[in-house]
Amino acid sequence: MANLITLTTDYGTRDSFVASMKGIILKSNPHAQIVDITHEIAPQDIWEAAFTLRSAYSQFPKGAIHLAVVDPGVGSGRRPIIAVTESYYFVGPDNGLFSLIYRDAERLRVHHITAGHYFTASPGPTFHGRDIFAPVAASLTKGIPSGNFGDEITDFVKLNVPTPKRAGNSIDGHVIHADRFGNLITNITYRDLQSLIPDGGQMGQVSVTVTGKEIKGLKKFYAEAAPGDPGAIINSSGHLEIFLFRQNARTGLAIKRGEVVRLTVESSA
Amino acid sequence: MANLITLTTDYGTRDSFVASMKGIILKSNPHAQIVDITHEIAPQDIWEAAFTLRSAYSQFPKGAIHLAVVDPGVGSGRRPIIAVTESYYFVGPDNGLFSLIYRDAERLRVHHITAGHYFTASPGPTFHGRDIFAPVAASLTKGIPSGNFGDEITDFVKLNVPTPKRAGNSIDGHVIHADRFGNLITNITYRDLQSLIPDGGQMGQVSVTVTGKEIKGLKKFYAEAAPGDPGAIINSSGHLEIFLFRQNARTGLAIKRGEVVRLTVESSA
Amino acid sequence: MANLITLTTDYGTRDSFVASMKGIILKSNPHAQIVDITHEIAPQDIWEAAFTLRSAYSQFPKGAIHLAVVDPGVGSGRRPIIAVTESYYFVGPDNGLFSLIYRDAERLRVHHITAGHYFTASPGPTFHGRDIFAPVAASLTKGIPSGNFGDEITDFVKLNVPTPKRAGNSIDGHVIHADRFGNLITNITYRDLQSLIPDGGQMGQVSVTVTGKEIKGLKKFYAEAAPGDPGAIINSSGHLEIFLFRQNARTGLAIKRGEVVRLTVESSA
Repeated sequence: MANLITLTTDYGTRDSFVASMKGIILKSNPHAQIVDITHEIAPQDIWEAAFTLRSAYSQFPKGAIHLAVVDPGVGSGRRPIIAVTESYYFVGPDNGLFSLIYRDAERLRVHHITAGHYFTASPGPTFHGRDIFAPVAASLTKGIPSGNFGDEITDFVKLNVPTPKRAGNSIDGHVIHADRFGNLITNITYRDLQSLIPDGGQMGQVSVTVTGKEIKGLKKFYAEAAPGDPGAIINSSGHLEIFLFRQNARTGLAIKRGEVVRLTVESSA
Repeated sequence: MANLITLTTDYGTRDSFVASMKGIILKSNPHAQIVDITHEIAPQDIWEAAFTLRSAYSQFPKGAIHLAVVDPGVGSGRRPIIAVTESYYFVGPDNGLFSLIYRDAERLRVHHITAGHYFTASPGPTFHGRDIFAPVAASLTKGIPSGNFGDEITDFVKLNVPTPKRAGNSIDGHVIHADRFGNLITNITYRDLQSLIPDGGQMGQVSVTVTGKEIKGLKKFYAEAAPGDPGAIINSSGHLEIFLFRQNARTGLAIKRGEVVRLTVESSA
Repeated sequence: MANLITLTTDYGTRDSFVASMKGIILKSNPHAQIVDITHEIAPQDIWEAAFTLRSAYSQFPKGAIHLAVVDPGVGSGRRPIIAVTESYYFVGPDNGLFSLIYRDAERLRVHHITAGHYFTASPGPTFHGRDIFAPVAASLTKGIPSGNFGDEITDFVKLNVPTPKRAGNSIDGHVIHADRFGNLITNITYRDLQSLIPDGGQMGQVSVTVTGKEIKGLKKFYAEAAPGDPGAIINSSGHLEIFLFRQNARTGLAIKRGEVVRLTVESSA
């Protein structure tokens, strides 16, 4: 039986929010194992949470319960949900936070959490992380079937996830995240790159263009680039990434989330 | 038997201080469960630690050991203590850190820790978190009675905790904390609000005044306020809180800890 | 059998890097116990990681596996290694990260990790923390002998660790770290101080000079110094440290890592 709960929030680690959730979980199941994914999501940035959760969730053992709370609409009409895929549970607000999970899932069932007897004694309208999501996640570790928490719904919220656009031998995407090192992650994936190469062809000359700069070729690892020279790479999540070796590309190239990135392949076929 | 230790410190997470404490605990009891409340208390800010610990401690299972170290006087005459309430243990320096716990407790016993054989082999004068508090907390998880660590004392240090003042149909309190979102938490509680309403009366018009601004009414949840409009709410800890929906009230309203806040009820009785 | 893995990285806690490593470890061994030392090492600062790991590792139970990744050369020729000492395992890149461990060790064996069947299914060239080091550390918790991961090597990389220089009744060292409080830690140790005192002599007048300022005497604990007055102390790791009581010496004295510090003893012998 699953015993593992991961946490992804914008609560930060300075206040007691996260600890309160952990306390509630351990009160309900002292044997629950809790792993932080991050609590440093920018306040109320649902997209960043969706992206970060997506980068980590599949590394965890089958059956893990991924609890995520970035929840500007807490207390309003937005629904609390459990999403169940072929391998994991996801517990959080129905505001699009799990959009990238829905896209990945082979099997998907989403339940609207309504069974108030699983909540803390007097749940308030401002801290569902503690009052609803933590006790529900803890109940899941005890083997309570997801159906017990509420009816299945099909009109759950999906973010409008931007997808790269193909045009001839190019693909236009954009920067979707800057990581701690200042590496710029795009929504262009290795699969997109492969799709540019015609049947029977070989990967020819690849170039990446961003804010007027052209980066020739793809590196295999960071240390291949000269310090100070922008490089492009398929990163550990299979995404095209722009970096400055041993420097911060976000500040060094002054590029932000949303910036357009073009990948071009000169096929040698 | 209690197995759970929470940690609240101003040690930060960049250095090895916290890890050293965890190592010492696990050396003593490999089965101890350790949960961080926070290590981001502003350096040497005893009040902030007292407030943060108070917001989280009661969410944890009965028997939990709350270890807290914000300790500018380490090595000097200030005493190491264990406070025992009806539900929890608290281990740390006797500098007022547990003042809000003392106020909450139904039963309270405080011991001056003097039994050096529970400390690490050669405790130094600068890092009692590692040398005294961690091994003592670990010993508590092994069922050693609190009385074994030293004599009971009654002259333990209490911070002068500011309380709101009633004046007619108003209560004057002040901002005691700004959380990660910039929400401004006051020392005025739901109980204070209730006390303003005369017997048999109903909650009428409520207003909150801070730095000359008047905020009309209380919201039930954050999303009820228009973005950019200051709102007031009874938060998840039962405290009156001033917020800007999806914005940072601390910076947006330029309000700091200590600022006076007045809550007025125009009773309809 | 060792079950405990500590983590020291420059991955930060905002992204999913650390969580991915933890997921991989728990997938391999659901009973592994994971403790963060820190993830806030300055990006690619191998020295800072070496120093921080050195300050914490020996506090952990014998048999613990210390996984550390600060890895600018990931994917290039630099080798992944396991270092085995009389008490611990160390897993990470062969870039000098374990230099201070090598110096401390009474017994030392270093293996070049080459046995790819212990890695994740398709290890990439950019995230060895997840693809190589995490699964190897998890395998160690399952009792797999370190020799199974690859051959012993003797030409492992050592940082040029600066050592203090004796000159008459003085020792010249320098600042090697500034901690969260702004305390300035030097590479001069209590042992160095003792070596200044001639046989049969007693510790006389000690003074510390840094950027032209002379600090007279050593304090026993921080609160002994007057606020705003620089103090010197042998800290909890046995290093000479310069501090400002209740203030930040790094910013207050404008002193950086690398600054020369002189310790002088006027022997009374």
